[in-house]
Amino acid sequence: MIELVEPIRAGDRRALARLLTAVENQREGVQAALTALYPSTGHAWVIGLTGAPGTGKSSLVTELAKAYRAQGETVAILAVDPTSPFTGGAILGDRIRMRELSGDKGVFIRSMATRGSLGGLARATRDGIRVLDAAGFDRVLVETVGAGQSEVDIVRAAYTTIVIEAPGLGDDVQAIKAGILEIADVLVVNKADRPGVDSTVRALRTMLELGHPASREQMVAHHGKSMVAEAPTTSNNHDFWLPPVIRTVATEGEGINELVAAIEAHRQYLTQADRMHQLEQQHLQMELVDRVRDELVKQLFAVLPAETLRDVVNQVQSRSLDPQTAVNQLLAFQQVNVAK
Amino acid sequence: MIELVEPIRAGDRRALARLLTAVENQREGVQAALTALYPSTGHAWVIGLTGAPGTGKSSLVTELAKAYRAQGETVAILAVDPTSPFTGGAILGDRIRMRELSGDKGVFIRSMATRGSLGGLARATRDGIRVLDAAGFDRVLVETVGAGQSEVDIVRAAYTTIVIEAPGLGDDVQAIKAGILEIADVLVVNKADRPGVDSTVRALRTMLELGHPASREQMVAHHGKSMVAEAPTTSNNHDFWLPPVIRTVATEGEGINELVAAIEAHRQYLTQADRMHQLEQQHLQMELVDRVRDELVKQLFAVLPAETLRDVVNQVQSRSLDPQTAVNQLLAFQQVNVAK
Repeated sequence: MIELVEPIRAGDRRALARLLTAVENQREGVQAALTALYPSTGHAWVIGLTGAPGTGKSSLVTELAKAYRAQGETVAILAVDPTSPFTGGAILGDRIRMRELSGDKGVFIRSMATRGSLGGLARATRDGIRVLDAAGFDRVLVETVGAGQSEVDIVRAAYTTIVIEAPGLGDDVQAIKAGILEIADVLVVNKADRPGVDSTVRALRTMLELGHPASREQMVAHHGKSMVAEAPTTSNNHDFWLPPVIRTVATEGEGINELVAAIEAHRQYLTQADRMHQLEQQHLQMELVDRVRDELVKQLFAVLPAETLRDVVNQVQSRSLDPQTAVNQLLAFQQVNVAK
Repeated sequence: MIELVEPIRAGDRRALARLLTAVENQREGVQAALTALYPSTGHAWVIGLTGAPGTGKSSLVTELAKAYRAQGETVAILAVDPTSPFTGGAILGDRIRMRELSGDKGVFIRSMATRGSLGGLARATRDGIRVLDAAGFDRVLVETVGAGQSEVDIVRAAYTTIVIEAPGLGDDVQAIKAGILEIADVLVVNKADRPGVDSTVRALRTMLELGHPASREQMVAHHGKSMVAEAPTTSNNHDFWLPPVIRTVATEGEGINELVAAIEAHRQYLTQADRMHQLEQQHLQMELVDRVRDELVKQLFAVLPAETLRDVVNQVQSRSLDPQTAVNQLLAFQQVNVAK
């Protein structure tokens, strides 16, 4: 794969596609290319976009890409599908709308689905982002779907995370939001021409102002009084970042300029002081821990005979051994083996 | 915690609640109680229920619990929330409807949210199910929300998995289903009085018949011709299981008897031949591997000085070291330490 490195740096899209396929399939030999490309990373601004089904993510991503193209910036879109861990992945969402981007050399679109574990997908996503970054794209848009840890893991690779909502998606959307709001830097209420948009926006603002843990802490630390009065949610040139709530109708292109401006404001916020440095450190630390975890288990199962695992499972199944004691037996096996 | 074991076996609900809290918080000393209770497990039929927001999961779980109570069976409901990995969890869905179950001694309801990692939640869920099983409940209903790996992990602890859909939840619901369908033993289209129900049911049937990998393989292996003609989706007394699609209106109690019958049919299917034995083995093997992975990383970071990790992260951030080489350095540290 190392032979793909120079063509990728030179803008060869077929070489780029080939390496991304190798990354997705976690193929042997991919590591040397990633190592060689790594020093060229750090240029792209990585934007994560996530939202439940029905929020119109694909249209929004398409419009955002068009807006960046109009500014003369190059855009890579990585559509990550964490929903099919068993057979190799469904195609994400509505790719048809993205067709209007095809034929533009300044745009590169790629989807990535689960091959094997979700941990593998999160890793492939991070590696894929780095490849796109090293290939020189100004913006990397990482789109994912879901509600839960899977999207959180994927979105952790982004600098600016956009959570997309839409009016009227059902009763317990509120409960979902509580978790996902915590990762949002910018909130979008798409399909803002639909009934119920005002109450969706109001609910989000309330949850943000009352519940966003970082905002709340920093609000108290820096201001000592209510943020609601202090800081309008669309102005953020402060010591803290309160995610703005942007209304869009992506199919009509409405609100896209505001979204671009909000992303830019967040970028400026992060690049102030050493916030960006700290964020990247946090991301890298989490990534290294994840990778170490995967490697450790791979090493253990490389030395553990299949029949030992089978025996232990049988004992747990017959209730003669409980799961934790079984785990201790398996771990002891490794330590003896390493120490030898 | 070991003092809670006998009261729990004797039906003491306060002792049960205390141990479940300790399990959720992964508190020290909980393991001895789990080890002591483990031989009493294996009685309950564990049913997983999952579905996107807006499908009416809580109403359905409530109606299912009422149906089992009417048959004289005891029911535990574990509502698992994987959506808030950062601050300790939002409350799942609409608990209000479940209030009609309160006051019934034969029902026990408990929610469980993320404390720390999702891996931790999957583990706590498995342990929680075992505690409820050992406490003597006939049915354990595990309810979760989401679309992706998080719910797959949680649902893997169940014997019968029910995936809940509803008509008209948006464009890219189809993409979600592709992944989640693979874990479904029974499909429910709830809110079946809404427009679009026929097309939702038809889409699900088509996806099941064409796409369900187990069905497809077994269909070919056992029948060698089209399953669509061979096996109506509601009759399953065969060599393979094709998930039936059940229409319900949970708020009206409609379709609940059919759902109960479908779960029973699946149970009978699993208890034929050694299918149940094999399923439990698969679940246990995955669980042991997960636990081993968590323990290994805990052990490594117990011996790794914080400044070593910090140094390595800094080198990766400055691009003087790439992530995989960094991981190799961290792993080498452990092996040296274990070998000493």
